[in-house]
Amino acid sequence: MHFKINEAIELLERTPKTLSSLLTGLSPEWLTCSEGEDTWNTIEVVAHLIEGEKVNWFPRMNMILTQGDDYTFPSFDRFAHLTRNETNIEQLLLEFKHCREESLDKLRNQLKGLKDFEQTARHPEFGPVRLRELLSTWVVHDLTHLSQITRVMAKRYKDDVGPWKNYLGILR
Amino acid sequence: MHFKINEAIELLERTPKTLSSLLTGLSPEWLTCSEGEDTWNTIEVVAHLIEGEKVNWFPRMNMILTQGDDYTFPSFDRFAHLTRNETNIEQLLLEFKHCREESLDKLRNQLKGLKDFEQTARHPEFGPVRLRELLSTWVVHDLTHLSQITRVMAKRYKDDVGPWKNYLGILR
Repeated sequence: MHFKINEAIELLERTPKTLSSLLTGLSPEWLTCSEGEDTWNTIEVVAHLIEGEKVNWFPRMNMILTQGDDYTFPSFDRFAHLTRNETNIEQLLLEFKHCREESLDKLRNQLKGLKDFEQTARHPEFGPVRLRELLSTWVVHDLTHLSQITRVMAKRYKDDVGPWKNYLGILR
Repeated sequence: MHFKINEAIELLERTPKTLSSLLTGLSPEWLTCSEGEDTWNTIEVVAHLIEGEKVNWFPRMNMILTQGDDYTFPSFDRFAHLTRNETNIEQLLLEFKHCREESLDKLRNQLKGLKDFEQTARHPEFGPVRLRELLSTWVVHDLTHLSQITRVMAKRYKDDVGPWKNYLGILR
């Protein structure tokens, strides 16, 4: 196990700026390409990250701290963001930045005096989950979607690279 | 085929800032973790990107433009960077930023009046490769290593996420 709250926060606070550096001002061709039908483009991934801030990560932390062992989280709708109409990437990046700052402010506030990351609540599918597992998953979830965005954009050029395709595992 | 030089440059010019946003000031634990023996940590990946700027991408473009069809590129040593002693991430990020700016300045300079992206030289393994394939590969190579860095860091928490592991394909 490697989880330490300060190291987890380091990554959580870097994600908005990382996404902004990569995506601000990019051509629509990069932002709207996907891996095929029923897969997400970059705009949809950022909308999904916003949804996670609003109803998933900090809210579930709060449920663990206030509701306790027997409480079962409401399900997180992983497709809720697909009903959004906002497709302007700069607008979405700004919203994500604000939501994340708010989440981290609330997280840091809860951390004052908190020593026990073993507290649990119930996940609707898995059963008991620990606070440190939720916080670790938040970090990995960010990294997953950063990785997804770069993979999706790389695949746009899968035929353009010609014979170099053999060297580029990301395209397979 | 999707390659357009302006869209390719959009991504090439964003990579240094994206890496800086993600990596500047991170704890050594994030920067030195890897996927196991004989795999690269994040510091080594950034050193590899610097090496590519110095001997691979723009230099090969220049070979295509000045040497022509029958010329065979010298091999690129994909492990050369492992002999470097520099391990300070901020120093490496700064060096990469400068190398990339220089590459893009030279690239933009070559582009003045250049219309033919079908020109070729010979790759030591593949044989004839086109300029547009080289430039597309440069972009995908950046994205590959951005994706790698996020994957490597995610895997550090593969046991920490507990039962959420089932949802996180990046950890498999």
